[in-house]
Amino acid sequence: DWASTALLRPEARDALGESLGTAWADPGRVYQEAIESRVALEQSREILADVWGCRSRSIVFTSGATESIFTATNAAVQLAIEGGATSPIRIGCAPVEHSAVREASKSSSIGDVEAVELVSLPVDEFGRIDVVAVGEVIDSLHVLQVQWVNHEVGTLQPVYELVELAHRHGVFVHIDAAQAAAWAFLDFDALQADALSLSAHKLGGPVGIGALLVRRGVVLPGLLRGAAQERGRRAGLESSWLVQGMAAAAVAGAVDREGEASRLQALSQQLVAAATAVPGVHQVGARYVEATAPHIRCFVVDGIEAEAIVLGLDRAGIAVHSGSACSSELLEPSPVLAAMGIPSNNSLRLSVGWASTQADVDTFSAEFANAVSTLRALTP
Amino acid sequence: DWASTALLRPEARDALGESLGTAWADPGRVYQEAIESRVALEQSREILADVWGCRSRSIVFTSGATESIFTATNAAVQLAIEGGATSPIRIGCAPVEHSAVREASKSSSIGDVEAVELVSLPVDEFGRIDVVAVGEVIDSLHVLQVQWVNHEVGTLQPVYELVELAHRHGVFVHIDAAQAAAWAFLDFDALQADALSLSAHKLGGPVGIGALLVRRGVVLPGLLRGAAQERGRRAGLESSWLVQGMAAAAVAGAVDREGEASRLQALSQQLVAAATAVPGVHQVGARYVEATAPHIRCFVVDGIEAEAIVLGLDRAGIAVHSGSACSSELLEPSPVLAAMGIPSNNSLRLSVGWASTQADVDTFSAEFANAVSTLRALTP
Repeated sequence: DWASTALLRPEARDALGESLGTAWADPGRVYQEAIESRVALEQSREILADVWGCRSRSIVFTSGATESIFTATNAAVQLAIEGGATSPIRIGCAPVEHSAVREASKSSSIGDVEAVELVSLPVDEFGRIDVVAVGEVIDSLHVLQVQWVNHEVGTLQPVYELVELAHRHGVFVHIDAAQAAAWAFLDFDALQADALSLSAHKLGGPVGIGALLVRRGVVLPGLLRGAAQERGRRAGLESSWLVQGMAAAAVAGAVDREGEASRLQALSQQLVAAATAVPGVHQVGARYVEATAPHIRCFVVDGIEAEAIVLGLDRAGIAVHSGSACSSELLEPSPVLAAMGIPSNNSLRLSVGWASTQADVDTFSAEFANAVSTLRALTP
Repeated sequence: DWASTALLRPEARDALGESLGTAWADPGRVYQEAIESRVALEQSREILADVWGCRSRSIVFTSGATESIFTATNAAVQLAIEGGATSPIRIGCAPVEHSAVREASKSSSIGDVEAVELVSLPVDEFGRIDVVAVGEVIDSLHVLQVQWVNHEVGTLQPVYELVELAHRHGVFVHIDAAQAAAWAFLDFDALQADALSLSAHKLGGPVGIGALLVRRGVVLPGLLRGAAQERGRRAGLESSWLVQGMAAAAVAGAVDREGEASRLQALSQQLVAAATAVPGVHQVGARYVEATAPHIRCFVVDGIEAEAIVLGLDRAGIAVHSGSACSSELLEPSPVLAAMGIPSNNSLRLSVGWASTQADVDTFSAEFANAVSTLRALTP
C-alpha cells in the first residue's frame, strides 16, 4: 500500500537522525544558531529546486499536500477576484480528483458560499480527464484542477495538454502531483503550471512537510498568514529539520528515476498477471501500461467485499488498500471510483514503492488466490 | 531567545529518534503496520489530553499554532454564519495579538472581504487587554481573540475574565496559548474556551506539529478538508511520529511545572536587575512580576538600535531578539509594541527556557553592559 504513504528512505532517516539536535533555531532570527538553521533550510531548498526543475524561490514549504492544495486553490480564487472576475469563481475539477482537491474547489470561501462554483469535468471509464470536453468549457473557467495521476486506479492524466490548454485561455492551473512525485520526472519550469502540490511522505520523506511550487510571476497570497516566512506566502516557523529529511528523500529518488520507474512498472505488471489469473478478478482504470502510473494498479473482485481481502492478506503480511475509504473512520463508497462506474466495495488497490521487491510480488501471487478462494467458500 | 522557539528537549529527541523508523504507516488503514501507527497516535493523544486537561477527542493535531489559529478563526466565523449572524462577522482582536491572529481576524474569507470586520480592543501601556472596555463592546462581537501572554513583552492577559465574559454573552472565544503552553498550567476543560491554539516547538518538541483544542459541543468545521482524519476536522496524513515527539516534550514539561515556572521567573528577574542596572535601560510591558510570564522580559535601550545589541551579544554567544521583526526578511517596527507606545527599534526581548541556567544569566550580566557602552561610544 505504497500509494497511501511510503516507508521512510534510509537517506531521509539518516538526515533526520543527524540533524535531530541541530537546526532547531528560528531561521528568521539573526544570531548564530538561527543563521545555521537558515543555511540548512536554504541549502535544502536549492537541492529540491534542482530535483524539481524550478528556481528555489518557486518553492513554498508547507505541512503537506493537503495544505498546498488549499493554499493554491484559495490563491487562485483570490487572484481571479483581484483580476476583476465576478463571482462565482468557476473551478474546473473532475470527480476523480483527490478529496482534498474536491473539497478545496467546492467552496474556498468562508462567509460567502456563492463565491465559488465547481464545474465538474467529464472523465472516461478509465478515469482519464477528457481534454476535448475541457476545451469546450475552458473559456467559462477561472481555475483548472489537474491531478498528475489518479490515486485510486493509477491512470495518468493528460497533464501537459491540460496545462497548455489552460494557459492559452488564461486559466490558472494547479497540479496535484502528490501521487506522482515519487517517480515522475518533474521539470516544473518547463511544465509552466501555475502551482503544483506535493508531500514529502509519498517520496519516502517524513510526514508533516510538503511543498507548493509556484510559477515565476505568480504573486501568491498565502492561506496561513502572519509572520513573513516563505516570502510572505506561508506563515509559521519553518522546520529546517523536516525539510532536510524531504530533500534527502527527493535526492535519493532522483538518482535513478527512470530505472526505478521501470522497475516499479514491471513489478506492477506481475501483480496484474497474478491477480487477473484468479477467476472473477478484473483490472480497472487503465487500458495501456503507458497510460498508467508505475506504482498503482486497481482490481475488481467479483462477489467479494474487498475489505475482507485486505484483512486476509494482512494475515500474510501483505498491506493493500480497498477503494472505499480514505480514513478508517469512514467506509463509504469512493466517489472517485463511482465516477468511473467501478463498484468500490469490490475494488482492491495494489501499490509498490522504493523498497518493494520481487519477493513481495511472489508472496502476493502465492497468497492472493488462497485469500479469494477462502472467502468465496464462505460466501453462500 | 526562547520565546521564538525552544531547544528540543532530550525526552522529545529520544522519542523521535526511537520511533524514526516506525509509526510511518497511514493510521487510517486497517492492516497491521497501520494499526500500530494508529495506536501510537492515539496513545500520544491520551497523554496530551492528560497534560492539557481535556478529553482526547478535544485535540485536533495541526502543523502548528499558525494553522490552529487560522482553523479556529475560520471555524468561528463559519459557525456564526451558520447560527444566523449577518455579515460582517465582528471579531474582537487587540493590536497586541500575534500577527497570525491579527491576519486571521482581518479577513478570514476569500471572495468576500466584507464578511469579516476586525474590532480593535483597547490595551493599556503594559499591553494588557482592558476587560471593562471589552465588556462595553462584547454584545456587538461574534468572536473574541485572546492571547494568553504577550509574545513581545510578556504581559499576562486576563484570560479567565475574558473567557467568562465571552461566554456570558454567547461570543466564541479563541485563546492563543502558543507562548504560554511551555509553563502555564493548562486545564482546558475548566477554562471553557471554545478553542485554544498551541505548537510543539515552543514546548521543546519538534517544529511542524501543533494542536487545536476544541471545547466539547463545538462541531468544528475544518480549514484543511478532504479525507476524514482527526474526526473530519483536519485532513492530511497524521504524523504519529511528530505527535510522539510533542507528547514527550509536553510530559517532560509537566513533571515539575510550578518549580520550573518559579525557576524561570527568578532567572528573568535577575535579567531585569542586570539590564536595568545599565543607565538608560528601562523595562517595558509589565508593572508586577505576577502579571508577567515567567520567561519573557522586554527592555528599551535609550539611543541605541536594538539590532546592533542583538549582533553584539551574539558574538558573546547570547541569543536575544529585538522587538522589530518576526522574520529576518522584514525589519519593520512592531505594531504590537507601537500599540503600547514602545519604540520598537530600541526594544530588546530576553527570554529563558527549560535549559537556561544561572551561568547563562551571569554571562548576559557580564556582557550586556559592555555591549551597550561599546555601542554608545560609537554613537555621536
